[in-house]
Amino acid sequence: MGRILAEDVRASRDVPPFDRSAVDGYAVRAEDVFEASEQQPKTLTLTRGTRLKRGEAREIWTGGMMPLGANAVMMLENVVREGYELKVLRAVAPFENVARSGEDVSRGELALESGVKLRPWHVALLAAMNRTKVKVSRRPVVAVLSTGSELAKLGSKLKPGQIVGTNNLTLILMVRELGGSAIDLGIVEDDVEAIAKRLELGLRKADLLLVTGGASVGGPDYTMEALHRLGKCEVVAHGIAMRPSKPTGLAIVDGKPVIVLPGNPVAAMIAFDAFARPVIASMLGLRSWERLKTTARLTRNVASTPGYAVFLRVSLTRKNGELYADPVATTGSGVISTMTKADGYVVIPEQREGLEENELVTVHLLI
Amino acid sequence: MGRILAEDVRASRDVPPFDRSAVDGYAVRAEDVFEASEQQPKTLTLTRGTRLKRGEAREIWTGGMMPLGANAVMMLENVVREGYELKVLRAVAPFENVARSGEDVSRGELALESGVKLRPWHVALLAAMNRTKVKVSRRPVVAVLSTGSELAKLGSKLKPGQIVGTNNLTLILMVRELGGSAIDLGIVEDDVEAIAKRLELGLRKADLLLVTGGASVGGPDYTMEALHRLGKCEVVAHGIAMRPSKPTGLAIVDGKPVIVLPGNPVAAMIAFDAFARPVIASMLGLRSWERLKTTARLTRNVASTPGYAVFLRVSLTRKNGELYADPVATTGSGVISTMTKADGYVVIPEQREGLEENELVTVHLLI
Repeated sequence: MGRILAEDVRASRDVPPFDRSAVDGYAVRAEDVFEASEQQPKTLTLTRGTRLKRGEAREIWTGGMMPLGANAVMMLENVVREGYELKVLRAVAPFENVARSGEDVSRGELALESGVKLRPWHVALLAAMNRTKVKVSRRPVVAVLSTGSELAKLGSKLKPGQIVGTNNLTLILMVRELGGSAIDLGIVEDDVEAIAKRLELGLRKADLLLVTGGASVGGPDYTMEALHRLGKCEVVAHGIAMRPSKPTGLAIVDGKPVIVLPGNPVAAMIAFDAFARPVIASMLGLRSWERLKTTARLTRNVASTPGYAVFLRVSLTRKNGELYADPVATTGSGVISTMTKADGYVVIPEQREGLEENELVTVHLLI
Repeated sequence: MGRILAEDVRASRDVPPFDRSAVDGYAVRAEDVFEASEQQPKTLTLTRGTRLKRGEAREIWTGGMMPLGANAVMMLENVVREGYELKVLRAVAPFENVARSGEDVSRGELALESGVKLRPWHVALLAAMNRTKVKVSRRPVVAVLSTGSELAKLGSKLKPGQIVGTNNLTLILMVRELGGSAIDLGIVEDDVEAIAKRLELGLRKADLLLVTGGASVGGPDYTMEALHRLGKCEVVAHGIAMRPSKPTGLAIVDGKPVIVLPGNPVAAMIAFDAFARPVIASMLGLRSWERLKTTARLTRNVASTPGYAVFLRVSLTRKNGELYADPVATTGSGVISTMTKADGYVVIPEQREGLEENELVTVHLLI
């Protein structure tokens, strides 16, 4: 459960492998009771044989294998049993109350496609086909580093000017939720040498590097400098027209992707969703990397910053069968409680100056 | 992550614990640059001190602690630096570009409420408060038993008339997804003695018993008979006006809840959602036991059975910003692929004869 299927799974046989009764009752040959009615019941002889002859019926329970020769099941309430005789009070159509062999998946049919995340029902379908093993994708290894001289380790005594560095923990959990595996590279001070040393370790061990902080635009830019020291560093983007998370950087170092996320906790989470999530999902072979999206009506006007994609956190409520999105915040990139209060986020396009009350918006669900 | 918070968590101090800069720039006293403009810049003296005096400014980076006396931050693009002098080209309001202490949660404020499922951002908020431990609820222990003489163990060679028993696996995974812990009591044949023996073991070890199969209405009813042998058995319901999952039973045996689920795999999953999920969620102390619900437009008419709550599996698509629910199936309680193709389900109320194309429906999301 939770792993990503890495092969197309076809049924090697019909599931279920034989016709089964869908109800409790009596297996019959539909043609024997074609004209049965309450006024003119048909009488059948009960048998325990595995093959029904003309004029015979056999008791059967839900899920039981249909006897040979039988092609329909009479429900208990439509018969009167008298000793070894059965009075049938109505007709049945051929295959009425029968679960046909192969109705779940038939032999050779594509049961599950590569790239699907295995939930209980997917595992159930594999089990129903008697499959005990399937290929799943390897968990990508993601190394996570926080930079910032002001950051203290969780649980330590805070000195003046220090705050707890929470980003590694958050990102490790987000990586795990998505199906990846994480390496914690810890926290380093704002020092190019120290950052480069830790990143080198990450680059050797991981498929993807996430670094938070140290990517100021205009100010000191320790992280980007450290990346250039490590090896061949191709900067894909540095500074992105989004809010929060503007100071995000994307680079390829010695062929490996590195994402420099903002140091502010909410900005780091939003930038993870926008940039790290698709990369990890692609490594996992996931069919869809996006969060499930729904549509809701905005409960009030929200101002935005033209030229920027603005990530508005919203909470959802339902009223009279309609879904409403209540804005929590567009700002406060350090205010983690804007995430704990949210059920999802809306991306306000960069060409808009805001959103209007009652407007239909697309919500990316944080569930 | 994934555990349920079992206490209200209040902040023991302000988070963040001090005013911080929200941008890269210069900490200033807003009143010093009140009249600054590009035409008439104000000149400030740069300092490295921890307390700003009148006419002074200090370099500061995003997240840095505001020096004493400063109450606003000028962004880099609004100043010209010349040696130890800073020409300020515009005014700032008090606390502009400052993340105030306590803006995330202030001292004494309720940060997280008991009953919330801990996701990455909840853990982040706890970490930001420097909390290394919180109380979470105990995982309820759920014992799972399958009954049915036709059921074979996964991976075994199937004899004629046998199918793989998948229900234990599915239910164990559904219990785990919800946050419970599961005990596998295996598969037993349709025999009251054998069923009673296994259930007794489950009753001793578990908080909740789930039994699939053997609960025919009108036919043999091994499971209910076995429950009565075990101890004081109070039957709450037996046979429920829903489709699938009609042969569902609810009982209390020696004070412990027992849910008898249908043997058909899809019916077992649906009945789990309707009856086991709220019980387990309540044991976990979860604030909300329901799946997240959304609203969508039905893509075609669907017939229903009046007098029954009918569980319609649907897949979701988005078109022009609107969400559409495409019916997968209302029948086929053994057809597991109706679940793997679905994104959720709609409950058609018992007084309805069906649903209409374009009708707005509530979808319980299976994500």
